[in-house]
Amino acid sequence: MFATAKIGRSLSKAAYKAEVEDLRTQLLEAQFAAKERNIPIYVIIAGMEGAGKGGVVNALVEWLDARGVDVHAFWDETDEEKYRPRAWRFWRAMPKRGEISVYFGGWYLHPLEQRFTGKWDDADLDQALRRIRELERMLINDGAVIVKCWYHLSEKAQRHKLKELARSDRSRWKMLPKKSKFGEEYRRFEEVADRIVRSTDIGRAPWHIIEATDRRYRDATTGRILLRGIQDALERAPQVSLDDEEPPRNNDASFLPNAPEARVSLLDRVDLDQAIARTEYRRILEALQAELNQLAWRAYSQKLSTVLVFEGVDAAGKGGAIRRVTQAVDSRLREVASIAAPTDEEKAHHYLWRFWRHIPRGGRMAIFDRSWYGRVLVERVEGFTSRANWTRAYLEINDFEEQLTRAGVIVQKFWLQISKDEQLARFQAREDTPYKRYKITDEDWRNREKWNEYREAVNEMLARTSAQQAPWHLIAGNDKRFARVQVLEIVTGALREALKTKA
Amino acid sequence: MFATAKIGRSLSKAAYKAEVEDLRTQLLEAQFAAKERNIPIYVIIAGMEGAGKGGVVNALVEWLDARGVDVHAFWDETDEEKYRPRAWRFWRAMPKRGEISVYFGGWYLHPLEQRFTGKWDDADLDQALRRIRELERMLINDGAVIVKCWYHLSEKAQRHKLKELARSDRSRWKMLPKKSKFGEEYRRFEEVADRIVRSTDIGRAPWHIIEATDRRYRDATTGRILLRGIQDALERAPQVSLDDEEPPRNNDASFLPNAPEARVSLLDRVDLDQAIARTEYRRILEALQAELNQLAWRAYSQKLSTVLVFEGVDAAGKGGAIRRVTQAVDSRLREVASIAAPTDEEKAHHYLWRFWRHIPRGGRMAIFDRSWYGRVLVERVEGFTSRANWTRAYLEINDFEEQLTRAGVIVQKFWLQISKDEQLARFQAREDTPYKRYKITDEDWRNREKWNEYREAVNEMLARTSAQQAPWHLIAGNDKRFARVQVLEIVTGALREALKTKA
Repeated sequence: MFATAKIGRSLSKAAYKAEVEDLRTQLLEAQFAAKERNIPIYVIIAGMEGAGKGGVVNALVEWLDARGVDVHAFWDETDEEKYRPRAWRFWRAMPKRGEISVYFGGWYLHPLEQRFTGKWDDADLDQALRRIRELERMLINDGAVIVKCWYHLSEKAQRHKLKELARSDRSRWKMLPKKSKFGEEYRRFEEVADRIVRSTDIGRAPWHIIEATDRRYRDATTGRILLRGIQDALERAPQVSLDDEEPPRNNDASFLPNAPEARVSLLDRVDLDQAIARTEYRRILEALQAELNQLAWRAYSQKLSTVLVFEGVDAAGKGGAIRRVTQAVDSRLREVASIAAPTDEEKAHHYLWRFWRHIPRGGRMAIFDRSWYGRVLVERVEGFTSRANWTRAYLEINDFEEQLTRAGVIVQKFWLQISKDEQLARFQAREDTPYKRYKITDEDWRNREKWNEYREAVNEMLARTSAQQAPWHLIAGNDKRFARVQVLEIVTGALREALKTKA
Repeated sequence: MFATAKIGRSLSKAAYKAEVEDLRTQLLEAQFAAKERNIPIYVIIAGMEGAGKGGVVNALVEWLDARGVDVHAFWDETDEEKYRPRAWRFWRAMPKRGEISVYFGGWYLHPLEQRFTGKWDDADLDQALRRIRELERMLINDGAVIVKCWYHLSEKAQRHKLKELARSDRSRWKMLPKKSKFGEEYRRFEEVADRIVRSTDIGRAPWHIIEATDRRYRDATTGRILLRGIQDALERAPQVSLDDEEPPRNNDASFLPNAPEARVSLLDRVDLDQAIARTEYRRILEALQAELNQLAWRAYSQKLSTVLVFEGVDAAGKGGAIRRVTQAVDSRLREVASIAAPTDEEKAHHYLWRFWRHIPRGGRMAIFDRSWYGRVLVERVEGFTSRANWTRAYLEINDFEEQLTRAGVIVQKFWLQISKDEQLARFQAREDTPYKRYKITDEDWRNREKWNEYREAVNEMLARTSAQQAPWHLIAGNDKRFARVQVLEIVTGALREALKTKA
């Protein structure tokens, strides 16, 4: 893999100067065109110690219009990062559409270090690399350009370079390993790097291996690669679907016989009229809330985070159910994220970005009043996004939630369902109550007309995104008290179980 | 101060119900009207332990449209918060225009705790309270509503309440102090609270003391107070100047005789043609960069943060000077914030919000390529903001920078000046170099026509915002090399000094 980086390529001063003059003009043109076209650009600068990654970044920042370029390094983590899924820090730093983020090491540094130091074995590494492929594919599907450069040196060249660095005043390389040890480590490093580079060398985000012995060759080549990456993206017509995987097409409903007994869905199986008496309700509610209050404090002390998702038909009682949870959990420990129209900063990122923003710190709870499922519900039904986008979203959502649960976050999702008649009664009641009138809009009535389309979308969502670790709970909502108790029992139970496992 | 909170007021169940029905409708109307009018609303919920602050918040969230309400508590700080000025956490949580942020304890909790526990004396407390008054005044001048509620109990009522809480399952109050101790602590707490409430009871953000013995009285009264606060703001015509302090009006220039020798300004005193030979430059640059590299790592290890501000006339060489700094400082330790047009999230906050976003973590460096001084430069000259806004900005800026320097942050500000002839030469050179052409726009030529207006604005800015701890440096820029060396010498010197003091 790295033989091409040990050839001894270089660039004379004069050739470099001519090259760069031309390159800068073209890079700027490409940068402005990409800005115009809202293409987000990721530049990943990785490679060996001593290869001069910092120098490359300085050159790029000098050549480009610095106002559209951000540089990010991911190393000494803060406690805000430490207790969230690893990807959170990358999402936090992602470029807006039309901008360029240069990632030092990017998402590759951590796996490289873990494997090189022996903290991970090959299986751990492969799993992390699979995750990286998924992340990159997702970003590319969203229109991003990812340019990945790997800077390499021969053993001799690296040794020479590190010695030189040690002599300078910038003293991070004072202690080189002994000669024999150095060669051994060089080979082990190259082995790990080889595995990483090979298995993430994917079609639309290939690695470029760059010989780093000669500074001028290294920087000019990087510039050319970046230029080509942007130009390629500009050439692709924006309408072309970027999927390299088939989105799921086996939409069950379309294959089903028309007879109602053959079309029974998950939703139909819920007995919506389950109810609970008022006195019974008071007693249970109080006990559950008291327990939840304590569990939330214990979760806090153990850095155990929780994500609750509330979706449901209009007027199904999401708000009331959420309030029964927030009444119990100390307000210092939870945040309610009410998902409405995205801001322009949010629109300028992948659609999952605005949910990553609300992923809770260690030990806290985030409650989503509507969520990332909007993509496969309202956006699908109303045609706000393309078919390719929402079909792809199942995979992206499953992957997102898997990252949460693998990081130890409790994820519980609630679908609140009421009957069509009950909805009508509630709509009318809202219109009759002054302080509830704001809750009911023309849009609600319009949505009601699409009851069946929503039903189909919900059924498919439930089928495709129910995971053992991040389950959907269908809540029978005709009786509000029953629904609230259900939700509280599930949340409390999930925390109780998770704390038992942890303890 | 708190006698009114020991009267024994209450509200019957029936009265409460009627009250709330009416209140909810009106609160929602007020909330929507405030949203329409882009008024940001701060609700500060403070008071005694056991007064039921959590209950108040739950009631408010239930009555209001929860989608426009955020609840924030400031307690166990993260390391991202710890090593930044204290106010950073509040800025991070500030409501957008049109939204409501409920602050538990707000900026009052910390001073209260510090004084109560004896970590601060009265002088410390008074200083913190002065700062709070300035913050609130600033937000109000920006159109915000601040509603401050203090919940109080008599000694007997508090004792009773805490005992009750201790009996319940929510077990944070198990250990009450002994009877005699309790009375003593009650009095001491009340003393501190009295000082805080009295000295922050300012005209347009008054405190409301609310008796908290009866839950219904407490919540309904809070609702009324919030309602009145929003309604008052809605009644104030948006055009009315909100200043309760006279903005500075002694603009020197207008009082000056016309003769040129009487109108000499700070800028005139700079010898723009100072220069340095190329070989000398190389030698000094290399030495300074090497030193700066090391100083930046030492600053990192000591959590010493740096903020550099670069302003200057167009084509004065800000970018080149900044790059000489970034070449020296490891990219893991610094961020360059290029200030361009604000995003809509930024526009939806006080103008300083977008700069607080970039205040560096402990031990890092933030380099601002243009900055908050835009308010008193381009916004003033181009008339993008009202006279009241930019005249008030001097005070706000000085206060902002004082918060940084008091938190130990190094703040150094550079004004890069070139002569009008030199600017013309550079504009023309830019137009002749393909990869520099993008740097020159019609706007630059238009700005050039306003050379004298800018000059006046700069002189006033230098006069009003030069602080010993956050000084302006006038950099003679006709010779780029000289300018860069000047900047590097100052940055390096400032870090060297600060590290010496710290060590």
